[in-house]
Amino acid sequence: MDNLGTIFLSEIVGTFLLLLLGTGVVANVALAKTKGNGGGFLLVNFGWGLAVFAGVTAAYSSGAHLNPAVTVGLAVNDPGSYPIGKVLVYIAGQLIGAFLGAVGTWLAYKQHFDDEPNPANKLGVFSTGPAIRSYGWNLITEILGTFVLVFVVIAFGRGGSADAATPAGLAALGAIPVALLVVGIGASLGGPTGYAINPTRDLGPRIAHFVLPIKGKGSSDWAYSWVPVVGPLVGGAIAGLVAHPLLPLITK
Amino acid sequence: MDNLGTIFLSEIVGTFLLLLLGTGVVANVALAKTKGNGGGFLLVNFGWGLAVFAGVTAAYSSGAHLNPAVTVGLAVNDPGSYPIGKVLVYIAGQLIGAFLGAVGTWLAYKQHFDDEPNPANKLGVFSTGPAIRSYGWNLITEILGTFVLVFVVIAFGRGGSADAATPAGLAALGAIPVALLVVGIGASLGGPTGYAINPTRDLGPRIAHFVLPIKGKGSSDWAYSWVPVVGPLVGGAIAGLVAHPLLPLITK
Amino acid sequence: MDNLGTIFLSEIVGTFLLLLLGTGVVANVALAKTKGNGGGFLLVNFGWGLAVFAGVTAAYSSGAHLNPAVTVGLAVNDPGSYPIGKVLVYIAGQLIGAFLGAVGTWLAYKQHFDDEPNPANKLGVFSTGPAIRSYGWNLITEILGTFVLVFVVIAFGRGGSADAATPAGLAALGAIPVALLVVGIGASLGGPTGYAINPTRDLGPRIAHFVLPIKGKGSSDWAYSWVPVVGPLVGGAIAGLVAHPLLPLITK
Amino acid sequence: MDNLGTIFLSEIVGTFLLLLLGTGVVANVALAKTKGNGGGFLLVNFGWGLAVFAGVTAAYSSGAHLNPAVTVGLAVNDPGSYPIGKVLVYIAGQLIGAFLGAVGTWLAYKQHFDDEPNPANKLGVFSTGPAIRSYGWNLITEILGTFVLVFVVIAFGRGGSADAATPAGLAALGAIPVALLVVGIGASLGGPTGYAINPTRDLGPRIAHFVLPIKGKGSSDWAYSWVPVVGPLVGGAIAGLVAHPLLPLITK
Repeated sequence: MDNLGTIFLSEIVGTFLLLLLGTGVVANVALAKTKGNGGGFLLVNFGWGLAVFAGVTAAYSSGAHLNPAVTVGLAVNDPGSYPIGKVLVYIAGQLIGAFLGAVGTWLAYKQHFDDEPNPANKLGVFSTGPAIRSYGWNLITEILGTFVLVFVVIAFGRGGSADAATPAGLAALGAIPVALLVVGIGASLGGPTGYAINPTRDLGPRIAHFVLPIKGKGSSDWAYSWVPVVGPLVGGAIAGLVAHPLLPLITK
Repeated sequence: MDNLGTIFLSEIVGTFLLLLLGTGVVANVALAKTKGNGGGFLLVNFGWGLAVFAGVTAAYSSGAHLNPAVTVGLAVNDPGSYPIGKVLVYIAGQLIGAFLGAVGTWLAYKQHFDDEPNPANKLGVFSTGPAIRSYGWNLITEILGTFVLVFVVIAFGRGGSADAATPAGLAALGAIPVALLVVGIGASLGGPTGYAINPTRDLGPRIAHFVLPIKGKGSSDWAYSWVPVVGPLVGGAIAGLVAHPLLPLITK
Repeated sequence: MDNLGTIFLSEIVGTFLLLLLGTGVVANVALAKTKGNGGGFLLVNFGWGLAVFAGVTAAYSSGAHLNPAVTVGLAVNDPGSYPIGKVLVYIAGQLIGAFLGAVGTWLAYKQHFDDEPNPANKLGVFSTGPAIRSYGWNLITEILGTFVLVFVVIAFGRGGSADAATPAGLAALGAIPVALLVVGIGASLGGPTGYAINPTRDLGPRIAHFVLPIKGKGSSDWAYSWVPVVGPLVGGAIAGLVAHPLLPLITK
Repeated sequence: MDNLGTIFLSEIVGTFLLLLLGTGVVANVALAKTKGNGGGFLLVNFGWGLAVFAGVTAAYSSGAHLNPAVTVGLAVNDPGSYPIGKVLVYIAGQLIGAFLGAVGTWLAYKQHFDDEPNPANKLGVFSTGPAIRSYGWNLITEILGTFVLVFVVIAFGRGGSADAATPAGLAALGAIPVALLVVGIGASLGGPTGYAINPTRDLGPRIAHFVLPIKGKGSSDWAYSWVPVVGPLVGGAIAGLVAHPLLPLITK
């Protein structure tokens, strides 16, 4: 008995917070004249992890997927609980929230976008790009990173880390594990592609980059845009498939 | 049946600890000859987050607001629980505690203030300032950062993260989520203005900077001082307004 | 009544995740052109700690040893619960998982391995090596680091940190202490040898380095390979011996 | 009905772990040719915080004081529970454990001590020293830092953070708050004196530095040695005095 309206709203709010804080930390490290300029990879990792923490805390009525790869992974793992309409409601909410979060970061850092001379740094705030471009290998990196994310998230509670705990206080603690996991995946598997590991995390802000009147912006690099969509969806689906027979054996 | 004296005392102690440790980490990174000189933005983020942790742990009988934007946000969210007198008692305690915490940092770093040649670094220990001065955009950044803070704090437990847990041991754990949230907001939205996200965090130490006999100090930059007061109050109030109809839908 | 198949599978999965994320963070910091290149020792420490977190979370049905030094330490501490066949099943699973995890990192960073000119950096992703080579002192460092790991792990719950908590959500929290412990040991005792503190963590990836067709790879440094196997086993056994009479006195 | 032998042993083990990992991280950052050389202040802060975490986890039967300033603060706060003989047993265990932990770090980093040309870096591994020498102001910094430590520790549970939780798994979680607190105090108030905030943390290793045959060592700087003993004892005692009337008002 799912309330699709609640899921839709919950995913919008959670993904909005995720992308506002997530693209925000990249803006802080990458754009000209900010206080965190050149702050390093660990700062970016913690920023994204804590963005997950904030988003998951606020969105727990929908299980706080905030990521189509998680939704698809859970649907593959347990098809009976995820009819196609429900999956699409999740993804629609996530895409809208991601777009809005990126708009928020643009507003928060408006002057720094204006002062930044390098168009690549501007796009880098919104979307990921490969350190060495090679669609096949980039895809493998994204598949591996997302596999780890979705497999361990299913291990957390077979349905999103926040599901197990009902009171809001516990939900806040429940968001810590998934936040730590994202810090870890970013530190460890983020080196080649910047770890999208989430289709809407990349596509929503890329659309925002495309439509917003950002001063001196360059290309939105649509040629690469399918990699951080397809890779995470494939990785999440594999995780759901593998977890279905495997996790009941090793976590019980 | 609130005990206003308890609230007043609790907020003084908690905000004192918050500002002693919070302005302390900036002193450590910014002032001449300290052991943490040039320690980086992530060190500052963690320092402020753990300052929140210490202050919230000690002050949980008042719900550990430690921030007029939180108090105003909660009052807007639930006006019946926050008559105007109570709101003023909270804010008075916060302002006194913030002033005292900044005095503590001045004493702890007395010789480093004396040896620091740049007056701007001295003021930077006490109060925030914009990376690019533009009151309108600076205001928007502070509104966004405080909106996230207050919205997620209300999501934690609709009344301060420490309210849910009664025993002191649990309260200590209960302070972890809000500490993490502040680390995240600082990492992500702190780049343009240094994230006051709290009127007394900025105003209390600015008054301390103004009145203390700091060797070679410069201007207290009163021209900017209204931004980190008004921005957070507006952001907190918006969060309270938005959370009132929205959070019951997505966190229940 | 142990199910050896479950233990075997659980240790493979957990150690796979541990080594995928653990060797991944070294690849990110050490290999050419990655986004985390030169990211620093703390990034490596957190990467390995969160690798432990992910592995322990997924593998809790076997107690998530993921390390022969832990298995041997527990067996020495409580011989009745660990017949020799069971110990060997644990170690076999750990070695296979470690090998597979290193293969995963090679795939995720394939292009960066190809572009990296220095063979020592490539080996350093897979296995540890001493800052100053001296087998005797290197052994002492590994013994001390592993002693701390296994002694405190036994203190956590006398049988792996995840044992105490049954529901998966709590198990995720239960993996946090051991993750923090590994961050701490790495930060503090990792300076001379790079903290293997786990025989399969070092040997499994060293075998992978030896057999994989890594472009431009150099020696697998088999001359050193016994140190990170023997040192951790000795350190773990001493911890088990010392903990047997000591921990019941000081933790009860 | 205290078992003084248990307290003695528990404090030795806990303080040994605290100092082994705590002085270890300084060795890693400060000594020649280590893998963490120049790793920064945040690495040192986390290293000491996680050293506290390991020590408190292992030593919870004595309440894991690991610090005479904590013992004295608790005794001042609640004199009936701390007869003088018990206080002395705590302090004796702490001093012995601290000495032994520093010996362990010397062994783990033996070759790096030998290769390090600067005697000040060697002493810096063992004991604290002021950034700007001025006994009066150095004392004030240590008093303030220790006041925060002991005041918040009493707030955690009025008797050590680990007291509240009996099972070892929970004790491990219970050690997290005090670890975070020490990271925070170090980041914020550690700039001028390197935050001893614990008499035995400084004195035990200083004695070890004095008696060990460290190659090329210089002075043990006994002229400064009273500051990190007296400052923390005064700060802890003030915290106990202030907490006695204040904490029941604001945490209940």
